[in-house]
Amino acid sequence: MPIFKAKTLKRLSKEIFMAYGAPAEEAELVSDFLVKANLCGHDSHGVIRIIQYVKAIEDGVLKPGAKIDVVRETRSSALLKGNWGFGQVVAKRAMELAIEKAKKSSVSIVCAFDLYHIGRLADYTMFAAENNMIGIAMVNAAPVVAPYGGIERLISTAPVSYAFPTGKENLFVLDIATSVCAEGKVRVALHKGEKLPEGFIIDKEGNPSTNPADLYDGGAILPLGGDLVGYKGFGLGLVVEVMAGILSGAGCACEADKKGNGVFFEAINIEDFMPVDEFKNRIDSLIQRIKSSKLRPGFREILLPGEPELRTEMKRRKEGIYLPEKTWEEIMEIINKKGIDVTELVSESKGFS
Amino acid sequence: MPIFKAKTLKRLSKEIFMAYGAPAEEAELVSDFLVKANLCGHDSHGVIRIIQYVKAIEDGVLKPGAKIDVVRETRSSALLKGNWGFGQVVAKRAMELAIEKAKKSSVSIVCAFDLYHIGRLADYTMFAAENNMIGIAMVNAAPVVAPYGGIERLISTAPVSYAFPTGKENLFVLDIATSVCAEGKVRVALHKGEKLPEGFIIDKEGNPSTNPADLYDGGAILPLGGDLVGYKGFGLGLVVEVMAGILSGAGCACEADKKGNGVFFEAINIEDFMPVDEFKNRIDSLIQRIKSSKLRPGFREILLPGEPELRTEMKRRKEGIYLPEKTWEEIMEIINKKGIDVTELVSESKGFS
Repeated sequence: MPIFKAKTLKRLSKEIFMAYGAPAEEAELVSDFLVKANLCGHDSHGVIRIIQYVKAIEDGVLKPGAKIDVVRETRSSALLKGNWGFGQVVAKRAMELAIEKAKKSSVSIVCAFDLYHIGRLADYTMFAAENNMIGIAMVNAAPVVAPYGGIERLISTAPVSYAFPTGKENLFVLDIATSVCAEGKVRVALHKGEKLPEGFIIDKEGNPSTNPADLYDGGAILPLGGDLVGYKGFGLGLVVEVMAGILSGAGCACEADKKGNGVFFEAINIEDFMPVDEFKNRIDSLIQRIKSSKLRPGFREILLPGEPELRTEMKRRKEGIYLPEKTWEEIMEIINKKGIDVTELVSESKGFS
Repeated sequence: MPIFKAKTLKRLSKEIFMAYGAPAEEAELVSDFLVKANLCGHDSHGVIRIIQYVKAIEDGVLKPGAKIDVVRETRSSALLKGNWGFGQVVAKRAMELAIEKAKKSSVSIVCAFDLYHIGRLADYTMFAAENNMIGIAMVNAAPVVAPYGGIERLISTAPVSYAFPTGKENLFVLDIATSVCAEGKVRVALHKGEKLPEGFIIDKEGNPSTNPADLYDGGAILPLGGDLVGYKGFGLGLVVEVMAGILSGAGCACEADKKGNGVFFEAINIEDFMPVDEFKNRIDSLIQRIKSSKLRPGFREILLPGEPELRTEMKRRKEGIYLPEKTWEEIMEIINKKGIDVTELVSESKGFS
């Protein structure tokens, strides 16, 4: 049972990407975000992606070191063409640019297209929040969600993220799919041989299903709100398709030639609305009041957006990150193929395995 | 059974507000938006509000003709203080300003506080879309929604709206509460003596309930996603509380002295990202593809955000707007009290009653 320190996994990941031609800085950034996803408990966005990314590099789909072109630009907006570089590299640059622009002009939007998978949105919105900005992100990808009332997979899980700086309280960061669940949850259930809760997916006939295999046999994930009020999640999903797919020029999930992520990032300079400290105090008060709510039967506490991830991170920083045998084997194959020396790294992880 | 032409109701409403001291322009705008809500089928936001607004004017809570102060302003942002004028008047000015600013600087945000009820968000985002902008609106109000896992009413229904210009297709406008339902739906069920669907509300003990009366007896509306994934709607509701309540300075729903709406409006100038016609063509294609989806059993078509409202509007423009006896009686009381002559208006509505 391979268990690793975050530091080890990150160095390992970096070595691999460098062996595949990534500049050191890019390999560092991508590895940092992948391992952070593992730390937060989002293993579907963690180092398991090394396998996919390496294959994409081999296939020429992902191009480490690609130049980022600024296709359009104004004082408070920009449109970036990623030329199929690492999504993380292009997206980080996009949010950096958004922050720079918002500092000068209150609010800014940076969209990006032609880039590979960007990973978790929270990484970018938190980056804005750490710079005393409100960070907003929307991204579209491959179609896997049905419209409300429909069967076909025409919309991506269309995630949105918002992050706000706080004072004493933990960073407030929301990062959710606008579908009932992310595709990763269905895949995990499939691999574990578990059933899904009712209301997550439909089968290829449009009937409710709890069998995760049905998603991969022509089924679809339902929009947030499910049968009851799924027109809400459907509407939000379409908003993301427009903002991240159309405005960015990346294309909508339902388009036949859609590839990669479409990115919509926004940064809002709080200072132009109120002193940042006042904003932080107010958000602290909001969080404290919400967390003090009387609880429903069956609940032990109110968890704020980002809190479950933070707790998992604290736990995994102490106890290490567990990788499934199969994932580790496939990563080892890559390591062996490229002749990467891992002796030092393995000794570093002692006490964890 | 009083049935009215939209035109008649609007003139009636305008006369009333003018009799209560509203400048003609303000009375016109407010009446236009109230009647538009009736036309769209959102009667809870229609002329029934005349009764509430008139009382608020009498109580000195709502101040027709109030001056709007620009408290803070940059090239692409502004913070407006409404001095308790009509919400519609302040909000319309806010979106106007946002559009003006976005024309020059790609994207803009205008927040507003100290204003009365603004009505439906779609009116403002559609206004932006009619100006070839993407319109975004978030608003907070009184607390009526519980946090995920909690019982207390600490969050408003926290609606959000997005509108996009289209080409041949109907305007795309989403206007939804981030709770499972708007409070109006519960009130309507209560008045009709009907039960609510399961998953809308909890009672004061935090148990699921289908009795609308339980909401007004210490219960709460659930966040979008309900028991299954209510942390998503909860997170979105908090985002709205922060953007519309904190950033605007209007205060959060859970604050004891919270009054009126907190407003967050944003306009995005599409032209700075791509030619507007290209955007419109692309959104038309998206709509057409989505509407062509194979249907689930029990569904007859896919309805896009804003489509149900548009159909009701077409129907009511032809068939007239029905007002419940009680609403009409209360409005007539106001008319009589102020000695407003309605002879001409009533004759205008002939053929409808």
